[in-house]
Amino acid sequence: MDDEEHGETSIADRCTAVITTQQWDALPALLEEAHPADLAAAYQALPEEDRATMVQHLPRDFLPLFLPQLPGADAVEILGAMPDHDLSGVLDDLSDDVLVDFLQEMPGTLRGHAFHLLSESRRKAARDLLRFPEDTAGGRMTTAFAAVEEDFSVREAIEALRTIQDEAELLARIYVVDSEGIILGKVRLHDLTFADPSQRISDLNDGDTRAVLATADQEKAVRVMVKYGMLALPVVDDDGRLLGIITHEDALEIQEEESTEDLERQSGIAGDAAEEVYLNTPVLRHVRRRVGWIVSLGFLGLVSGSVIYSYQNQLGAVFALTIYMPMIVAAGGNTGGQAATMVIRAMSLGEISPAAFLRVAWKELRVGLTLGSILALCMTIQVLWFRPDFMAIDSTLLLRFAATVALALLSQITASTLIGAVLPIGARAIRLDPAVIASPAITTIVDATGLLIYLNLARAILPLG
Amino acid sequence: MDDEEHGETSIADRCTAVITTQQWDALPALLEEAHPADLAAAYQALPEEDRATMVQHLPRDFLPLFLPQLPGADAVEILGAMPDHDLSGVLDDLSDDVLVDFLQEMPGTLRGHAFHLLSESRRKAARDLLRFPEDTAGGRMTTAFAAVEEDFSVREAIEALRTIQDEAELLARIYVVDSEGIILGKVRLHDLTFADPSQRISDLNDGDTRAVLATADQEKAVRVMVKYGMLALPVVDDDGRLLGIITHEDALEIQEEESTEDLERQSGIAGDAAEEVYLNTPVLRHVRRRVGWIVSLGFLGLVSGSVIYSYQNQLGAVFALTIYMPMIVAAGGNTGGQAATMVIRAMSLGEISPAAFLRVAWKELRVGLTLGSILALCMTIQVLWFRPDFMAIDSTLLLRFAATVALALLSQITASTLIGAVLPIGARAIRLDPAVIASPAITTIVDATGLLIYLNLARAILPLG
Repeated sequence: MDDEEHGETSIADRCTAVITTQQWDALPALLEEAHPADLAAAYQALPEEDRATMVQHLPRDFLPLFLPQLPGADAVEILGAMPDHDLSGVLDDLSDDVLVDFLQEMPGTLRGHAFHLLSESRRKAARDLLRFPEDTAGGRMTTAFAAVEEDFSVREAIEALRTIQDEAELLARIYVVDSEGIILGKVRLHDLTFADPSQRISDLNDGDTRAVLATADQEKAVRVMVKYGMLALPVVDDDGRLLGIITHEDALEIQEEESTEDLERQSGIAGDAAEEVYLNTPVLRHVRRRVGWIVSLGFLGLVSGSVIYSYQNQLGAVFALTIYMPMIVAAGGNTGGQAATMVIRAMSLGEISPAAFLRVAWKELRVGLTLGSILALCMTIQVLWFRPDFMAIDSTLLLRFAATVALALLSQITASTLIGAVLPIGARAIRLDPAVIASPAITTIVDATGLLIYLNLARAILPLG
Repeated sequence: MDDEEHGETSIADRCTAVITTQQWDALPALLEEAHPADLAAAYQALPEEDRATMVQHLPRDFLPLFLPQLPGADAVEILGAMPDHDLSGVLDDLSDDVLVDFLQEMPGTLRGHAFHLLSESRRKAARDLLRFPEDTAGGRMTTAFAAVEEDFSVREAIEALRTIQDEAELLARIYVVDSEGIILGKVRLHDLTFADPSQRISDLNDGDTRAVLATADQEKAVRVMVKYGMLALPVVDDDGRLLGIITHEDALEIQEEESTEDLERQSGIAGDAAEEVYLNTPVLRHVRRRVGWIVSLGFLGLVSGSVIYSYQNQLGAVFALTIYMPMIVAAGGNTGGQAATMVIRAMSLGEISPAAFLRVAWKELRVGLTLGSILALCMTIQVLWFRPDFMAIDSTLLLRFAATVALALLSQITASTLIGAVLPIGARAIRLDPAVIASPAITTIVDATGLLIYLNLARAILPLG
């Protein structure tokens, strides 16, 4: 928290102060005032060895508020260290969706043990939710929502809702369902407040049944919420039965996770960042997420090396070719990476579909030609100006050399831009994550093609060997 | 919209059908049912030449709902083509924050004209909002919010709120202010609903004054909302006076924009994507956003070329060195890019501050050493196995060659990982956007350092020249 935030700054700071100085006496008063997120932030800033001490000083009934604010792995570690009696109490007080997140995060034995401690009905609820993979709408939804049946009167509805009046968030959206639980629309709390108590709910129902299937991708759910500016999105089964909702809070979290994932994929970082915190992640876990691409691309990079090696004679004859070699190769990687980023992002925002393949290719072809012409022009001037090497005295050779560099740049940039744009669409078409065609992969591919283009043009245009 | 979305699919499809087949008679009925976002999507899918026709068929009073769903540039184009009388009416019906977005997007003459058509009070409201840059909390906030004074009774508060009872979103948060407009907390609609009408608002006030300054970065506002799971975030001036709120809808949009920007910056794409749609952006605008880095990195890339060129003798003596050259160079770019992505992302999620510089450097040093050792080991085995070139018969040379490659990889990867992690923190410390130190820039820098490392090691270890 820095000075730009108005208000609670001092509480966040006080949390940190109380905890780092271990003034545990001051903790209860602080818990009254502070937001659990501030305590979680203070906890995460603690060195490993002091964390257990802090947890011991937290009252048991604060844990169900505190744990959901922590990264899953940290929360599970705390749960795993608790005696059965406390664990059972805390698990009981967690909301269904948080409970399921934690169960998914737990190692097998702890999960089995935790299941064993749950009541029959919660065990069933958890099993129901666990059917949906973590990154689907069903895996993310909360099952705590307010619903009333269409044939209730306003009076009956208010009576039914009174039990949850303290959970204000639930009342932000009140869904209307039929006797089977199939979603029919929603009513607003203030419609109920201002309505005649004998009116039927069906008269107030707005009829909006927009929803996503529980099996839909979580990213899809957020796209719908952004498009329609929705506060919460109902999640339904194949029959349209209301199973849960994605809240605005879930939506922000999903969006943050997905964009972290996109960024990381594009740099060749594998796996799921979801809940990891950079500084608290051990070195070996960082290595595990990065090493795959590094080693694969390392071997792939040998192809470029072999290309150079096999053109030993050409390079030996006009060694000045090497001056422009890294630049031509890198220009391909850079333009290809840019094109891939634009296209992957546009796809993930739902702007383009695989069907738009040709339109994208046509646009990027022109972008590539333009970028290639601009850089070719710059480098022609550079070559003619600096006259590398022995070419200072041979102007025919100089012109041919400049033509080689310019044509190589134009071809390399055009080809790379096209490759960068088209590969992600191709990946999507065969149901791969387009972001797997990350910039490092494209860079390594166009490294080799760039060398082939350049050295073959040199062979054709220059008097070599 | 694909088949995974439940509900409104058919309406979105019908919009597209009605519009593409130009069955304008069916439009009024459709407008009753469809969400403006669906019509906006259908509009954007139209070829340029049919768009004006569609706009002509939209009733004037639908435009204030329709235009905010379009990218700013498209909306402004439509506004610019309208006769004064209609323009004035539409501007009147836009909410303050949308109006200001459009004014910011307009070319100078149109903006002057639009200002002229506004009423005195709206002109003043717009001027007040225009003080804040587009990407600040003040620039993004909406000024439509519900507030009641602390010394109101519940009855007076409900009476005051009755005028806005149709704008349900406003009632999701009701802020409590003093007579100066300084924020004191909030009350919930259902607290009012269930409370004794003579009770004072100050008794129901939750006292939560968490807010951001209007001058704060919009990203900062979203971070606060994510951290505390807030539905809406009050925006205040230096005195704590409530100026507006960032809604959950704004938060999702800001987050989407910011992550697009991060992704693009990291691929060396300049400028602001904000509201542009990939396929509708002209080729030249795409080129303009990409060409800067491409040309700069092109010239920077000549440094690497010059390094190779100046080691002509070493390379000539053991030309097999070229086989591993691109791989060593690229490994630096890849690992440096990964490190930069991790660190930039962690910074933008607020996980690490410039003060954590040493902890980050120490972590990445170890990550780099580990990654470097792994790839060095792989490549040592590869060298010994494939025995490049003439080394097949000289095992001392082969071992020295393998040592050169392995040591170069270890040094290059360690150095690059460290550079990739440290440069963005350095950029932030001198108040640059860390994402400017994008992977292409890091790649180009470590290209040159990698060549220097490799070729100098070769000179030291191998019997050259």
